[in-house]
Amino acid sequence: MSGLFITLEGPEGAGKSTNLHYLAEHLRAAGCEPLLTREPGGTPVAEEIRSVLLSQHSERMDDDAELLLVFAARAQHLNSLIRPQLAAGKVVISDRFTDATYAYQGGGRGIDPARIAVLEDWVQGSLRPDLTLIFDLPVEVGMARARARSALDRFEQEHVDFFQAVRSTYLERAAAFPERYRVIDASVQLSAVQQQLHAVVEEILERWHD
Amino acid sequence: MSGLFITLEGPEGAGKSTNLHYLAEHLRAAGCEPLLTREPGGTPVAEEIRSVLLSQHSERMDDDAELLLVFAARAQHLNSLIRPQLAAGKVVISDRFTDATYAYQGGGRGIDPARIAVLEDWVQGSLRPDLTLIFDLPVEVGMARARARSALDRFEQEHVDFFQAVRSTYLERAAAFPERYRVIDASVQLSAVQQQLHAVVEEILERWHD
Repeated sequence: MSGLFITLEGPEGAGKSTNLHYLAEHLRAAGCEPLLTREPGGTPVAEEIRSVLLSQHSERMDDDAELLLVFAARAQHLNSLIRPQLAAGKVVISDRFTDATYAYQGGGRGIDPARIAVLEDWVQGSLRPDLTLIFDLPVEVGMARARARSALDRFEQEHVDFFQAVRSTYLERAAAFPERYRVIDASVQLSAVQQQLHAVVEEILERWHD
Repeated sequence: MSGLFITLEGPEGAGKSTNLHYLAEHLRAAGCEPLLTREPGGTPVAEEIRSVLLSQHSERMDDDAELLLVFAARAQHLNSLIRPQLAAGKVVISDRFTDATYAYQGGGRGIDPARIAVLEDWVQGSLRPDLTLIFDLPVEVGMARARARSALDRFEQEHVDFFQAVRSTYLERAAAFPERYRVIDASVQLSAVQQQLHAVVEEILERWHD
């Protein structure tokens, strides 16, 4: 029995948190106790870095600085939590991981993906998620849902163009590596989203038992 | 008239701050108004990252995460303050820069310098200091001075071996690139340290006028 690393991706308002718990419930019912975590964050040091990333500052945060902060939080998360759990044979489910970096800092901010790849290799070595679910929905729908529920953080205050680029980047990555990605239509009613997750639960359990 | 980037390096207790102001005074007397700054930090966002780096946490900070935080603060500092000032022809004097990273995270923590060099190039491109002063003194003297003056931060609480490795790394770098480094004997009385800085002031003014 080997560990399995699952990541959930998509914009705010796509229902990632709700569906993360739905997935976990179904895995638990089948005797698999997943570790649920999130990025940026997931450990005390990484959550401190998260708060620097998401809060407003008296100066503009430099794009390279932002990207390095994202990977600093990721190094902490990976080395102190995710890698040990995977080594112990656990299923780890993270709300966001490096695909979000390609989408937000690459697509959104316009950082060359080749520069992101240098840091990805530097921090992760050869580690990549085993399976990535992309919760996809039209930009306007996600923005309206995010706006309705709480004050917006530094990223959520970005404009439509930014989120269009985020969405396109996710979909391009999913199309380029179909064996790793499953695109979930998150624009439909919650019950219809969860219907799409049944096949995913089966797939996780099958690969976990291998 | 071109900008000039001067860095001061050495452990806590080596008198970097005092001597930074002494240098600045002599430059001002000669009509050169330097920008004084420090690392990690130097801008509002970078100072926030500094506080994550220096404070105690409820978990051990991962070495890779620490190194990425150092470079995140540096990217902010470089892109939002140092580069624009150098482009405007200023003399910029920073209390610590990337040599400290090779000394503390490389020598002290044992991170492979080749991995540090990847991030140095990623963040700085070809930018390197024009002149680096290394304030050198026996480890025990520096530790005693640092202990005498305030509560110790996360780095200052390290052990003698750590600081021996920091010192050796500084001296090895100075020996490898003598055209860029000036080693200042900081174990002597302040007046004798400052005596050694007169030649440095002359050199800075000469190169600044070129």
